[in-house]
Amino acid sequence: MAGNSIGENFRLTTFGESHGPAIGGVIDGCPAGIVFDAELLRSEMRRRKPGQSKIVSQRKEQDEVEILSGIFEGKTTGAPIGFLIRNTDARSADYDTLKEVYRPSHADFTYDAKYGFRDYRGGGRASARETACRVVGGAIAKMLLAHHKIKVQAWVSQVGEIVLDKDYSLLNLESAESNWVRCPDAVVAQNMISLIERVRKEGDTVGGTISAVIKGVMPGLGEPVFDRLHADLGKSMLSINAVKGFDYGSGFAAAGMRGSDHNDPFVPSGKAHKIGTSSNNSGGIQGGISNGEDIYFRVAFKPVATIIQKQITVNKKGQPVEMMGKGRHDPCVVPRAVPIVEAMAALVIADHLLRFKSQAPFQG
Amino acid sequence: MAGNSIGENFRLTTFGESHGPAIGGVIDGCPAGIVFDAELLRSEMRRRKPGQSKIVSQRKEQDEVEILSGIFEGKTTGAPIGFLIRNTDARSADYDTLKEVYRPSHADFTYDAKYGFRDYRGGGRASARETACRVVGGAIAKMLLAHHKIKVQAWVSQVGEIVLDKDYSLLNLESAESNWVRCPDAVVAQNMISLIERVRKEGDTVGGTISAVIKGVMPGLGEPVFDRLHADLGKSMLSINAVKGFDYGSGFAAAGMRGSDHNDPFVPSGKAHKIGTSSNNSGGIQGGISNGEDIYFRVAFKPVATIIQKQITVNKKGQPVEMMGKGRHDPCVVPRAVPIVEAMAALVIADHLLRFKSQAPFQG
Amino acid sequence: MAGNSIGENFRLTTFGESHGPAIGGVIDGCPAGIVFDAELLRSEMRRRKPGQSKIVSQRKEQDEVEILSGIFEGKTTGAPIGFLIRNTDARSADYDTLKEVYRPSHADFTYDAKYGFRDYRGGGRASARETACRVVGGAIAKMLLAHHKIKVQAWVSQVGEIVLDKDYSLLNLESAESNWVRCPDAVVAQNMISLIERVRKEGDTVGGTISAVIKGVMPGLGEPVFDRLHADLGKSMLSINAVKGFDYGSGFAAAGMRGSDHNDPFVPSGKAHKIGTSSNNSGGIQGGISNGEDIYFRVAFKPVATIIQKQITVNKKGQPVEMMGKGRHDPCVVPRAVPIVEAMAALVIADHLLRFKSQAPFQG
Amino acid sequence: MAGNSIGENFRLTTFGESHGPAIGGVIDGCPAGIVFDAELLRSEMRRRKPGQSKIVSQRKEQDEVEILSGIFEGKTTGAPIGFLIRNTDARSADYDTLKEVYRPSHADFTYDAKYGFRDYRGGGRASARETACRVVGGAIAKMLLAHHKIKVQAWVSQVGEIVLDKDYSLLNLESAESNWVRCPDAVVAQNMISLIERVRKEGDTVGGTISAVIKGVMPGLGEPVFDRLHADLGKSMLSINAVKGFDYGSGFAAAGMRGSDHNDPFVPSGKAHKIGTSSNNSGGIQGGISNGEDIYFRVAFKPVATIIQKQITVNKKGQPVEMMGKGRHDPCVVPRAVPIVEAMAALVIADHLLRFKSQAPFQG
Repeated sequence: MAGNSIGENFRLTTFGESHGPAIGGVIDGCPAGIVFDAELLRSEMRRRKPGQSKIVSQRKEQDEVEILSGIFEGKTTGAPIGFLIRNTDARSADYDTLKEVYRPSHADFTYDAKYGFRDYRGGGRASARETACRVVGGAIAKMLLAHHKIKVQAWVSQVGEIVLDKDYSLLNLESAESNWVRCPDAVVAQNMISLIERVRKEGDTVGGTISAVIKGVMPGLGEPVFDRLHADLGKSMLSINAVKGFDYGSGFAAAGMRGSDHNDPFVPSGKAHKIGTSSNNSGGIQGGISNGEDIYFRVAFKPVATIIQKQITVNKKGQPVEMMGKGRHDPCVVPRAVPIVEAMAALVIADHLLRFKSQAPFQG
Repeated sequence: MAGNSIGENFRLTTFGESHGPAIGGVIDGCPAGIVFDAELLRSEMRRRKPGQSKIVSQRKEQDEVEILSGIFEGKTTGAPIGFLIRNTDARSADYDTLKEVYRPSHADFTYDAKYGFRDYRGGGRASARETACRVVGGAIAKMLLAHHKIKVQAWVSQVGEIVLDKDYSLLNLESAESNWVRCPDAVVAQNMISLIERVRKEGDTVGGTISAVIKGVMPGLGEPVFDRLHADLGKSMLSINAVKGFDYGSGFAAAGMRGSDHNDPFVPSGKAHKIGTSSNNSGGIQGGISNGEDIYFRVAFKPVATIIQKQITVNKKGQPVEMMGKGRHDPCVVPRAVPIVEAMAALVIADHLLRFKSQAPFQG
Repeated sequence: MAGNSIGENFRLTTFGESHGPAIGGVIDGCPAGIVFDAELLRSEMRRRKPGQSKIVSQRKEQDEVEILSGIFEGKTTGAPIGFLIRNTDARSADYDTLKEVYRPSHADFTYDAKYGFRDYRGGGRASARETACRVVGGAIAKMLLAHHKIKVQAWVSQVGEIVLDKDYSLLNLESAESNWVRCPDAVVAQNMISLIERVRKEGDTVGGTISAVIKGVMPGLGEPVFDRLHADLGKSMLSINAVKGFDYGSGFAAAGMRGSDHNDPFVPSGKAHKIGTSSNNSGGIQGGISNGEDIYFRVAFKPVATIIQKQITVNKKGQPVEMMGKGRHDPCVVPRAVPIVEAMAALVIADHLLRFKSQAPFQG
Repeated sequence: MAGNSIGENFRLTTFGESHGPAIGGVIDGCPAGIVFDAELLRSEMRRRKPGQSKIVSQRKEQDEVEILSGIFEGKTTGAPIGFLIRNTDARSADYDTLKEVYRPSHADFTYDAKYGFRDYRGGGRASARETACRVVGGAIAKMLLAHHKIKVQAWVSQVGEIVLDKDYSLLNLESAESNWVRCPDAVVAQNMISLIERVRKEGDTVGGTISAVIKGVMPGLGEPVFDRLHADLGKSMLSINAVKGFDYGSGFAAAGMRGSDHNDPFVPSGKAHKIGTSSNNSGGIQGGISNGEDIYFRVAFKPVATIIQKQITVNKKGQPVEMMGKGRHDPCVVPRAVPIVEAMAALVIADHLLRFKSQAPFQG
């Protein structure tokens, strides 16, 4: 089957190209009776919006979300939630010169190879504009999670060579939203911002990482053996434009560790389920199932492929050509990707929550 | 839905517990007419088998695969391929003492939390014994890929602090199979083996990484926007026991790079599709679709949770207890996980190959 | 998972309520390169439209379809095709009195029972207005099938006691579109029209059947054992509002037959696949797989539940109340359901065509 | 995707050919904690077994079911339930002569057309032997439904020209199991048996219908708009070998009715949900969702294609040949199909029950 849906029991399907009339989607499987929080949706959209600061793309999309179905009298009805975002600032002319050219590390060549031709305007379906629909889906997932006191929070933990290397428990995560780059350490944030500004002036771009924590997940979410909770989280993150890697808990560092250091001792706890762990290398997931501890993970983003520098590439005929990047692109994708990472995490947790309810054990 | 199937058009479903009568599975969607290579299947099973060297578990499973359907006159028929592996060396008594105890960083607690009770014998469904079924599925996927000249190869690239840091193009990958640890550099391999032996003597375990490359994939595989080829690869790897992270191409290193360094210039090439790239930070995938270059990635494994040391934990009532690991476990999981990583990669590529065929563009 | 999608490889997802801002949907999996036939889409929509004759609902929906994505330069791109139909003639006030009342044989009670509350305006999600989206999906499926010379044709074969009992091979099926009721026999059509007019004057409604034939399907479509071609056709028909039964080929009559009469002898034929049958009780499907003969089937529709007569029912509190039907409903659903039956058939055949391509056998 | 799985949240996957080593399957998604009723499973298998009376096939399959996983200490564990049935009475030699011949109204030709070749022994995957696995799946579904007091019951309502035309509420349905043909009216049953014996002596076969009722389903099951409860029931029935039609409630008769007769008035009731209907043309389903009344439906079966008479057909080369049926086939399939119809119904209801639990509305 084609790949524009994600989730089994709580499912988001999206459509739309960067420069077509609109992008949009359908959320199917959302239970009835969830209070629709319009302000939360608007606020999430603002966090992803271009033009929000000097370090992001200056495109001017209104990103007005129109909800078309599935909400009645302020609540979800159980029917599919259709939604639409009109494309209002589509300057297709910017792209006419690129029609015949394969931009390096973009999806131009692979779309042509796969589909025979492509909507070349602004990247078409491959544009990160598509992620706006993920934020809509994620906002609705967050409304569901709010009923269960589950909270998803992401922040920027690296930009180029600037790394935030504090344990997240030592940070005031809320403060991430108070600066342009969404890093919850004011000093590091300033360094990141300076780096992004410098890179932008050079016509270059820079990569980064986003870290996230999900608090309040009850034990039991995740479906062995293939739909392990972290496997579905990983897939959802890897499906975001520009993502190159994912790890959770101890992550890649675990490869260098001994079992005697890595194991998380179980201890009596004050939680509803009474049992906790005194360390959390497991990242809140054991055997693919949540254990009630914080779920945390890290996502690596490559530098944006569009640079405002001369590059050598080939055209559709395979002939070498020289090209120069244009458009209003982000010098670094991570500040605006924070709400996207949260959205994908919320979608996965909502889906697994419904899957868990479906297969709750019988107390015969 | 429950999570014991993977793949859309080429789908593996598995079942079975470590100490039940058998494990097994069903492959549905394999095209008819594929020559069944029994020797390949046997050889893949041997690569995963316990007892193959001194640095792995000394359990003595025969791992005899019985094919029950879907093969006739030496070829696949298009009908589902059912298969079975009897459990022959199940020493359940080893686990009786652990019935009431939650082993640190195992899935005992989460299975109880999710399902209300669990088959505690040898880890039940959470046991890595389940991965034998993945190797069967992967072997059949490899038979399909062989028709398309696609080859999957994995090797051990890190054990604890010992890291193989050469670019894979400089290695003789075939040589990985010539040593116990499956590392394609004889000197590094020897250091890894020494480390594993030392760790084992300490009753401890150690983590590691596996790297892999897939050669010969035609441009066009992968289904945007959610089922990007690397997203499905990532999920499949993260679904393997003990995996903590996945990255592909430049991976986590991309976070520290500039776009001007990271971009892969397109160049004319001698390939069937005529266009190649002169570097490969993209890891053979752009916009979620294969571009004809090598696909390569890295998988991080934690140290095995069972250590032969005294540990503090809690029992089912949440009371603190002391426990001591037993059983015949691997001190390091990566040498035997190499064929599992290959199997999962082969399953994902086979699935996407069939999905690609399904939606091949019309040449009107 | 929720139920607003149909198809595996060619998939339609729909959303929207009768009196919300819009209805719409997404088609995912349509191969790239299909010529988009805007006139075919408009013509299919007109066939389903209310107000097209005196024997159907006089509602005045414009049913203007806006294509939002997936089409570029007149062809499908392989990206999901999003579409939208605004609701323009929603007279919600008509329904205010029915807010607390469960109309007999409508879905008011079951929606409340399932979802806790409902969008009561015009039947909400349960309204047959939703079928407009199926016609859009079906039109695009027909564009795909046209490439393969596959043609779907449906007609009205019964209205109440008036039955068209000729074999379809003796009828000029094209002529069905020349009369209001879509029956390809002028005399029978006139009787059906008279019956519908009489029933309407009585404030009553009447049931009927639609028959259909699919010509040009190559042998090999259908996926045993559960996704037999006729099983998926049957499900798709039973998913249409008001449908009560489905049979194909000899259908229910087969229950009264002997094998010696029912069997279809194979004979040499002039077709590409060289083998045909001299009778066709199989309805073009054997063992769940198309055999190259005509696929034909029959769909039974109940009389519309809204009657303009006094009825006894209960309100939300379970108290008996008397009610009187209102609104602009069809006295008989079958004339307008003909394009819907064709749409669902086209969707199923398109889906199985892509599934077949996916798993085409290897000619090793 | 291939078609050997059915169900979303409670899913059965089957494999196996008539004359291979074994048939079997996997049930995934069954909640943990269901008491495993081994006697129910055995009894269901006996009801389907060949050789149970003189009017069915005299093949001698033991049909011993081996449960391989997912059950521990007498209860389901939430892990997938794998099972196996060895083929013990496979007389492949009976079929050697048919290797090159396409038997009329069998799946020989279509399997060759689809897959390029086929396992011709005993019909291979197309054999009704496969339905034994459905009975296993259905038995486990029944164990789940028993927790909810839901009961599925089917019986033979027609054999050839002998029709049981009483309303099911006037019948003692339990008595169906007391005669060979499974008809709950002793006189009609005797006529049916006589007819089958007569037909068998003529080397012929005869069709029939099975009716079924599902009692105790709570209001709310079924997922509009495509996965209506009766649409999934219909598909599951149409997926059974030899089925030609399905209708529910008033069924095909509804086509001849007026709305004023067909509508089911709502009335206060003594049920938990307080509201019932005084008639039940809806067949317990309105808008695709159960309403708490009995769900009832009818399934039409064609006469078995294997007749012990001379027939004209073609061989693989398309040349006309004469053939003579052999083997130990049923002269009429309906007596043994009764437990299969029940099994499929139980699987569908179990699946929708879990889907309903998954999406139960929030009581904010």
